[in-house]
Amino acid sequence: MDGELISVGTEILLGNITNTNATFLSEMCARLGISIYYHTVVGDNEGRLRETLKQAWARSQVVIVTGGLGPTQDDLTKETAASMLGCKLVEDGHTKKRIETFFKEYLKIDSKKIPENNWKQALVPKGAKVIDNDNGTAPGLILEQNGKTLILLPGPPNEMKPMFQEAVYPYLHKNQPEVIYSQMVKICGVGESQVENDIKDLIRKQKNPTIAPYAKTGEVHLRITAKAKDEKEAKKLCKPIVREIKARFGKNIYTTEEEKTLEETVVELLANQNLTLATAESCTGGMLAARIVSVPGASRILKESFVTYSDRAKRKRLLVKKGTLAKEGAVSSKTAKEMAKGGCFTSGADVCVAITGIAGPDGGSKEKPVGTVFMACCYQGDINVKECHFAGDRNKIREYTTVNALILLRDALLQNFKKK
Amino acid sequence: MDGELISVGTEILLGNITNTNATFLSEMCARLGISIYYHTVVGDNEGRLRETLKQAWARSQVVIVTGGLGPTQDDLTKETAASMLGCKLVEDGHTKKRIETFFKEYLKIDSKKIPENNWKQALVPKGAKVIDNDNGTAPGLILEQNGKTLILLPGPPNEMKPMFQEAVYPYLHKNQPEVIYSQMVKICGVGESQVENDIKDLIRKQKNPTIAPYAKTGEVHLRITAKAKDEKEAKKLCKPIVREIKARFGKNIYTTEEEKTLEETVVELLANQNLTLATAESCTGGMLAARIVSVPGASRILKESFVTYSDRAKRKRLLVKKGTLAKEGAVSSKTAKEMAKGGCFTSGADVCVAITGIAGPDGGSKEKPVGTVFMACCYQGDINVKECHFAGDRNKIREYTTVNALILLRDALLQNFKKK
Repeated sequence: MDGELISVGTEILLGNITNTNATFLSEMCARLGISIYYHTVVGDNEGRLRETLKQAWARSQVVIVTGGLGPTQDDLTKETAASMLGCKLVEDGHTKKRIETFFKEYLKIDSKKIPENNWKQALVPKGAKVIDNDNGTAPGLILEQNGKTLILLPGPPNEMKPMFQEAVYPYLHKNQPEVIYSQMVKICGVGESQVENDIKDLIRKQKNPTIAPYAKTGEVHLRITAKAKDEKEAKKLCKPIVREIKARFGKNIYTTEEEKTLEETVVELLANQNLTLATAESCTGGMLAARIVSVPGASRILKESFVTYSDRAKRKRLLVKKGTLAKEGAVSSKTAKEMAKGGCFTSGADVCVAITGIAGPDGGSKEKPVGTVFMACCYQGDINVKECHFAGDRNKIREYTTVNALILLRDALLQNFKKK
Repeated sequence: MDGELISVGTEILLGNITNTNATFLSEMCARLGISIYYHTVVGDNEGRLRETLKQAWARSQVVIVTGGLGPTQDDLTKETAASMLGCKLVEDGHTKKRIETFFKEYLKIDSKKIPENNWKQALVPKGAKVIDNDNGTAPGLILEQNGKTLILLPGPPNEMKPMFQEAVYPYLHKNQPEVIYSQMVKICGVGESQVENDIKDLIRKQKNPTIAPYAKTGEVHLRITAKAKDEKEAKKLCKPIVREIKARFGKNIYTTEEEKTLEETVVELLANQNLTLATAESCTGGMLAARIVSVPGASRILKESFVTYSDRAKRKRLLVKKGTLAKEGAVSSKTAKEMAKGGCFTSGADVCVAITGIAGPDGGSKEKPVGTVFMACCYQGDINVKECHFAGDRNKIREYTTVNALILLRDALLQNFKKK
């Protein structure tokens, strides 16, 4: 099945907002086995919207439109789509009631005071399947004609996403002649081009299942997707590929769960071993701690974190020796080691990860150019140190550093797990 | 002048990456006074790419294409565009030399070992203006025909953005029949809908200059853009609107500089008053410190930061009283105050901002639901406290908290500045 996406909204054309709806819907369609051939963004202009809809409807089997379902005069998506398909707009009693309830319960507005405009949102093309919107007033709509499907959804992601996941996804899934099954494999500690190179042969001969690599900062995610007559068969098709990928990347695979993040994996490893963590950060300035804290329940494992940007703080909080700072410099392997060791000592945590580096734009030298970072992980007296050189601007360097510190921590925890 | 954007890349259609190039280029075109009517994303497929290019070229005066300029067989943008315009591809000696140097200096690869494919990137449509790429091998290209402009740029944002800013922007600017001048006004501490409501009258009667609001987390940016026959005239048109906006939002405007961020403003305020800062964070877990450190040169003002996630760390590092934690709880106005005061004391910093809150999803209660946050700013003995209630998931709550802590700090610094 092939499809395309249309996003309606002048604010996207002005660069006011990024079209993240298209990213979300594309990934969802890839999972459903629908090949998306085009994204189009068009403004709130009747003529251009009509032409765009007509063209998409002529060339694709599934057309998903987001935006332009609001209550104002500018919102034209529903009217234009209905007129293209030759459908009349009729009032949907259920939606009218839902809008009334929405105003009363969420916005505390009495039905008599609901702006006249909003009732327009209760009109739906005759024969459309209506999708309830739990986070707004505009309903979603699914229209079928001549074996093709037109789907209209509101623009705000917090309204659109749950509607897609709860109603549209199952609807499209059911309509698929085949079952789609996909399996995620998340890899850390291997560069994007290295991963692509290592699976070049698999990608070249891929057909069913397919392998799609998704590059994230410091990570690569591989999605393996198979089509088959039932889920059992599709899973069976994925299995040998997943097994092969596991054999090739081994412990660099940190999860095969769709939603799990690297920081979640690390927090879980710590919690499972009943260990507590401290972080000691210089150039990242708290980014590592902030990623750890982004995991719900991080309080169980995070003792505390130090952002020791000054030499004084490194000495006072982490007991880094004056001589080390003077002789080796704040950005050095020895300082990183002492920071990690001192962080364990002063916080009483079992493990401490320390980071010291030059994020730039200033502070670089010939021996230690911008992008030089030392990180250390102290765990029960053992200290691992890693020296890295990252390219990019200040914040890119800090992001790469943070991911690599998580990877260093994970490695230390896995090693210890093995020792036991 | 009207225009449209085409992004070429199957990875966007798979949802692998978000089309942030379109956001960037749209904002740039808005600044140039070019009305963008369409964004299209199309994959690496010759037939579909050709149709998309033809359609855009027929209906728009300026067409900007990103992606598909790489060295592989899949990269077809240049070939397809040249064939559409009836131009031959010819080798560009300057670009060939640049590619050789790039391989030698950046990738440490000898010219003899440069992959054969890469020489394809030295071919350019006859008559095209070539734009050098300092961060990659593919050159950018500008083609003119019958008063229309076709611009081809590489897909990676770190290559495309500087090329656009340094070469394409001035080129398009020069070609504009009118001069475009735009002025940014950045507002903090006022909600998006409040800002829109407060300038409703100005937006309603806008024509030249126009006012475009851009909502960021916890901030609203307003861009005022005027067209005129020269810059002096355009500036003159903007002036009364900017003055009016300044009168309406007063000290909530933190800058009128295009590139300046809230954290930069705060770091500058501290540096100008020769003050040092410490942060003491609980639920944000280092996000505030990380934003401060994102400003180059933050080392001058940041003494250190504490992520005191546990009660023990709050007591040990920040001298929060055992009785306060027991009686009022870790998330309370009193704890926030003591954290801020203790942070100043133990770090020796002049100012300390403290944050304690419930980011969820667990830990909420009827009295203190998820989203409850207390922040305090201690400055020479004076302590300001703010209680906030944020909606959203764990990370949204933490982001809003961080911005509001920056605003609290800014307010304290401005107040003191006034006292002096």
